[in-house]
Amino acid sequence: MNYIQFKHCGLNVALDVLSGKWKPIILYHLFHQEEIRFTELWRIIPKVAKKVLLEHLKQMEMHELIIREERSVFPPEVYYKISEKGRALGPALTALELWANEHAEEEVKALQAKRRCSV
Amino acid sequence: MNYIQFKHCGLNVALDVLSGKWKPIILYHLFHQEEIRFTELWRIIPKVAKKVLLEHLKQMEMHELIIREERSVFPPEVYYKISEKGRALGPALTALELWANEHAEEEVKALQAKRRCSV
Repeated sequence: MNYIQFKHCGLNVALDVLSGKWKPIILYHLFHQEEIRFTELWRIIPKVAKKVLLEHLKQMEMHELIIREERSVFPPEVYYKISEKGRALGPALTALELWANEHAEEEVKALQAKRRCSV
Repeated sequence: MNYIQFKHCGLNVALDVLSGKWKPIILYHLFHQEEIRFTELWRIIPKVAKKVLLEHLKQMEMHELIIREERSVFPPEVYYKISEKGRALGPALTALELWANEHAEEEVKALQAKRRCSV
C-alpha cells in the first residue's frame, strides 16, 4: 500500500471549482495571455454560446480564479486576467494534462477529433 | 506572462474522468487500501445511495481507474482496487488537494462542516 498525500475535502473543492465544460480552455487562454478581452475570448473558443461563456466566467470570478476589469470607454470594454489564486492552480493543471496525455491518449485524440479542443 | 505546460484537451479529459460527487472520496479510500469490498465502501461513505455509488464505480471502471473483482463465494463478494492508470493520478490529485488547502481554505472548512467529507 503506497501512502499518498491527497485527502478528499480539498480535492472535492478543487474539482467543484474546475467543473464546467469550457473552464479548461478559458484557463488555458488566461494562463497564456496577460489579459484578454471578452469579445476576443468568445471569438477564439469554438461553439460556445455567449450566455454560457459569461456564466462560466462569472463562476470563475466568484471563485476568485480570474479578475474582471471594465474599462470606462465607450462602448465599455471588458477584460479578464488570471488571479494569483488561479495561477496557483498551474502545477495541478499541468499534472492532470500530463496524466491524460500519458494514460488516456485515446480519449484525448477523440476529443480533438470532435474539435472540442485544439491543443 | 509565465509559460505553463498544461494545454486543455488533456485537462478536459482528466476533469471529465474525475467528475462525480463521490469520486474524490472513493479514490481516497482506494488509494489507502489494497482492496475494498463494495459493502464496506458503501458503509464508510456517508449519505451515498447504493445506486449512485454503483454508478460512480461503474464509470470509474469504464475509465479504467479501478478494477472490479467478483469472488465466487456464496453470496458473491465484490471487491474494488485502484488500477495502475488510477494510481498514476496521485500527483495531480495531491496537487489539487494542496491548492485547495492553501488557497480555498474557507470552502474546504465549509464542506467539512456540512459533513460531506471528513479528512
